Amino acid sequence: MKKLDPKSTEILIVGLGLLGGCYARALTEKGFTVRAITLEQSSIDYAVSHGFLAGGSTEVDAELIARSDLIVFALYPHIFVEWVEQYQHLISPGTVLTDVTGVKGNVVGKIQGMLRPDVEFIAAHPMAGREVSGVENSDPKIFCGANYIVVPTEKNTEDAIRLCEELGELLGFARVSRLSPEEHDRMIAFLSQLTHCIAVTLMCCNDEPGLEKYTGDSFRDLTRIARINDAMWSELFMENRDLLLDQMDIFIDRFIELRNFLAGGHVEDMRAMMRHSTERRARFDKPKE
Amino acid sequence: MKKLDPKSTEILIVGLGLLGGCYARALTEKGFTVRAITLEQSSIDYAVSHGFLAGGSTEVDAELIARSDLIVFALYPHIFVEWVEQYQHLISPGTVLTDVTGVKGNVVGKIQGMLRPDVEFIAAHPMAGREVSGVENSDPKIFCGANYIVVPTEKNTEDAIRLCEELGELLGFARVSRLSPEEHDRMIAFLSQLTHCIAVTLMCCNDEPGLEKYTGDSFRDLTRIARINDAMWSELFMENRDLLLDQMDIFIDRFIELRNFLAGGHVEDMRAMMRHSTERRARFDKPKE
Repeated sequence: MKKLDPKSTEILIVGLGLLGGCYARALTEKGFTVRAITLEQSSIDYAVSHGFLAGGSTEVDAELIARSDLIVFALYPHIFVEWVEQYQHLISPGTVLTDVTGVKGNVVGKIQGMLRPDVEFIAAHPMAGREVSGVENSDPKIFCGANYIVVPTEKNTEDAIRLCEELGELLGFARVSRLSPEEHDRMIAFLSQLTHCIAVTLMCCNDEPGLEKYTGDSFRDLTRIARINDAMWSELFMENRDLLLDQMDIFIDRFIELRNFLAGGHVEDMRAMMRHSTERRARFDKPKE
Repeated sequence: MKKLDPKSTEILIVGLGLLGGCYARALTEKGFTVRAITLEQSSIDYAVSHGFLAGGSTEVDAELIARSDLIVFALYPHIFVEWVEQYQHLISPGTVLTDVTGVKGNVVGKIQGMLRPDVEFIAAHPMAGREVSGVENSDPKIFCGANYIVVPTEKNTEDAIRLCEELGELLGFARVSRLSPEEHDRMIAFLSQLTHCIAVTLMCCNDEPGLEKYTGDSFRDLTRIARINDAMWSELFMENRDLLLDQMDIFIDRFIELRNFLAGGHVEDMRAMMRHSTERRARFDKPKE
């Protein structure tokens, strides 16, 4: 398959949760036939009855897999690897596989290392999510203004890379970029994993009752992501351990620097950090649609 | 003055910036006569022409002050203290003063210590703001769902405390609470000042160009407040130095704990922190209107 075509491309989502649901909604809206393999029949029923899924199964259904031209994996990293190991013989030649996994180095290496030569896996990371889970909470509006990263290796063909970029655009992402697995994981350690570590820590610093009566938006914003799927995120952290530790250590050093400016009454040094912060933050606003 | 009455209570805002502007809009909408003393004529012109200010002056106008029943100070802490020192002789007996200052201990002590016995200062902290400043950006919607803290001392009368609580309700805050200056400053060190320290630090950790192409909402959320008024916040930090240092040290300890769980591969300990975080965060959602 070289091109995504609503008339002929059949898409299979493996793992119909929040992100899988967003993909199914966005792609059904664009005219594609989307089916799913997922754990719970209730997820399939919900999506079918809401008109954004053509069908699905809670079993690893050979016919469902064989007819699919594009398979999107929205699973925990280790389950994704096991799934491909166990069921890749069911995939038709020429099928393209992609994913939504939050770390790439280990996973991409494992998948591409064992995959049949007549199918291709091109990794991607949609930089969007919500603090709630499940297909019922899926809403492709979370892709508006958001970033989509395609993560090719030297094993990928230019055709598959382009197809994956096209998928990001079809889903409604504002910016589609390419990074190597190593660049991706370093970036994500800083932009996503470190921020989750900070939010969780902040939420574990002070158990005083009643604080919610006094809080402002700054605390709410910094801890929105402190509602966290502990199974998934601990796995993502462990998969990217060394790079995340690097980022945590840099953060600790800078934070202690600010702490010592305050302790020593070095107002000008504090203000210089604040001005740098203000200037740099201006670049990170969401692109307007 | 014992009661806020749109027909008879004239309100003066000293410092018509973002928050002063929100007060003027909300109170004018409730039928009060609101005037302002502020640095720039353009701020007054903007507010008058947009219909949310009855008039104002860039001078410390004796008649404007004398006719006011309630004066709201929306100034930097040190300017607030100097203003009262210099101009309190212009205030009419029975007038109530309040403020929006982000730290209380020092400021409330200084003001109440020098204030004439025939006027009363009751401190308050509206827990709302925006990352932009100026009266042009004022919007009282930021008070919807937000918290308002009245900060009385033993020098305050119950009448003034109630009047200040009533003001918080009139402004549209969802929850109005009372805290002592000491409790307030401890709370704010954690809920507001620590979060600003974290956001600024995060924005100063990594100057790599192009990061905005890969970021997700978690980084955007955690750094929204990294756009910071360095003059004001460095002053607020210094005014509350010891309490903020305590909170920074607690945060560093917990963060290093999480770091070491990760380094040691103690997945169960990481997950326990994440579950605690998730459970506790649920209390901090904004009350629905």
